[in-house]
Amino acid sequence: MPARGGFRERAFHAWLRRSLRPGRGVAVGIGDDAAVLRLADKNLLATTDSLVEGVHFAAGTAPRLAGGKAAGRVLSDMAAMAATPRFGLLSLVVPPSWTARAVRRFVEEFEERLRRHGASLVGGDAACAPGRFVAAAALLGEPGARRPLLRSGARPGDLILATGSFGGSILGRHLRFAPRVREAIALARRLPITAAIDVSDGLALDLHRICAASRVGAVLEAGAIPVSRAARILARRTGRSPLSHALGDGEDHELLLAMRPSGRSRLERLHAGVGVPVSIIGRFGGRGVRIRDERGRERPLPASGWEHGSRGAR
Amino acid sequence: MPARGGFRERAFHAWLRRSLRPGRGVAVGIGDDAAVLRLADKNLLATTDSLVEGVHFAAGTAPRLAGGKAAGRVLSDMAAMAATPRFGLLSLVVPPSWTARAVRRFVEEFEERLRRHGASLVGGDAACAPGRFVAAAALLGEPGARRPLLRSGARPGDLILATGSFGGSILGRHLRFAPRVREAIALARRLPITAAIDVSDGLALDLHRICAASRVGAVLEAGAIPVSRAARILARRTGRSPLSHALGDGEDHELLLAMRPSGRSRLERLHAGVGVPVSIIGRFGGRGVRIRDERGRERPLPASGWEHGSRGAR
Repeated sequence: MPARGGFRERAFHAWLRRSLRPGRGVAVGIGDDAAVLRLADKNLLATTDSLVEGVHFAAGTAPRLAGGKAAGRVLSDMAAMAATPRFGLLSLVVPPSWTARAVRRFVEEFEERLRRHGASLVGGDAACAPGRFVAAAALLGEPGARRPLLRSGARPGDLILATGSFGGSILGRHLRFAPRVREAIALARRLPITAAIDVSDGLALDLHRICAASRVGAVLEAGAIPVSRAARILARRTGRSPLSHALGDGEDHELLLAMRPSGRSRLERLHAGVGVPVSIIGRFGGRGVRIRDERGRERPLPASGWEHGSRGAR
Repeated sequence: MPARGGFRERAFHAWLRRSLRPGRGVAVGIGDDAAVLRLADKNLLATTDSLVEGVHFAAGTAPRLAGGKAAGRVLSDMAAMAATPRFGLLSLVVPPSWTARAVRRFVEEFEERLRRHGASLVGGDAACAPGRFVAAAALLGEPGARRPLLRSGARPGDLILATGSFGGSILGRHLRFAPRVREAIALARRLPITAAIDVSDGLALDLHRICAASRVGAVLEAGAIPVSRAARILARRTGRSPLSHALGDGEDHELLLAMRPSGRSRLERLHAGVGVPVSIIGRFGGRGVRIRDERGRERPLPASGWEHGSRGAR
């Protein structure tokens, strides 16, 4: 017998069916064995990601913040493909420590975030089990530009672009980041973007990934990397440099992009129209992934990030 | 530092990228921010479901069996829509008790089952966390017949059909059931099927669900319900009747369908061509959900199933 206010699967499913508004293209939403959906065309993008209590958010975090993060993570994956989010699915594992109300708050915020980006929640599943709260999300989307942006399209000579700023996300932004969905589509439609990735595991590691997928090297310009205010605050506590936080912290959920150099002047004219600052932070090409400091000295950039001395030297 | 043989996310992702063969319609599979897919047309079905260690399978179960069950559950959802499975996504939460090899076995079997039904694994995510192993699957499909079979299409006078037999799944079948994907498509293409559901939570409860969705009553014929051999074996241990196990146990993953009565003679001619026995077990219509015993006496059928005496009286 669950405690008063305890989570019960059937009551949750009934609430879901009652409270979800059917979105565009949703013939049958939650409540049947599967959702029945209609796309604008035959091309589809799909991603999945899980959010675990105690790993991706601390126990005791407001459920709304956790739900927003679960949505933000898959929305950011769609952004990295320059895709338009359309349909979300959510599978929950709910421990006794989560009340029915907490679960509803989580789902409401998940759904609200999807809706804000034009997508609908069309499938939900919940199981009760002791342990940690787990939310596994899947998100389907449609191409938002001529073609999806892959990690593998960067070519030697392409410029390295980054949206927003980096580092110190643990101070709060990891729960409140804005997935760059509209910005990615605007950039992909107007500029010769050749590749993209969303920065979830750190600027350095995700640059390594785009380089590996594209079989190309890169040089980052240390002085051009947009270091966030949170990175500077955190650096005062840790004794590390703000730059090392920007390179290694992760969970920024900004975009790292490759652009043909011919796009440079258009990017400069476009800036105000994108909705977020876009910085040129280096160039693809050469062998390996390097970083150049403001005095022009180059050194290898480890995938784990970069620190003067110990970590930088590995 | 993980133990030797311990599961590590990056090694797992690298293994996934190496070992998955791209399937039909998969332009980009695992390895980018999202999969890039192409459908035969613009209509899409989508479902999600989670499998939790200690809830849906006992700790110590062979990972292959658990992986097969995770796939079978979402494949069975697709079957209930008469859909053709196409693309699967899998999110895992892996505790330290699971070795890297156990996780690979789980995923290999999940993927093998999908492939056997014409679908590809196109997205994977894994997080490490103490506690229980969790696998959340999403499956996308395309209509396999003129239109998807909904729960809401049953009309008064329709016959109640069931594939296979029911009860006692806990003796092993809950890990080894065959999702009725091809059978559902064959039935939906050849017969005037009006509604369907897959029996995951028990024949009685899932009949209640189809009745509620269709706003129609039903009468089950107790003597026509195909009771499995496992239900008879289990009944000898529990002292309950084999029929009560057939009605209440669940995890049969057989199909419960509604068919216009005009399809009866075609069903009889078709039987050998479906690949599984199909029984007529009652008729939709009237008020409430009832069961009629072999002496013609009707009584209400509780959603929880039915037992002579205590549980049946409810």
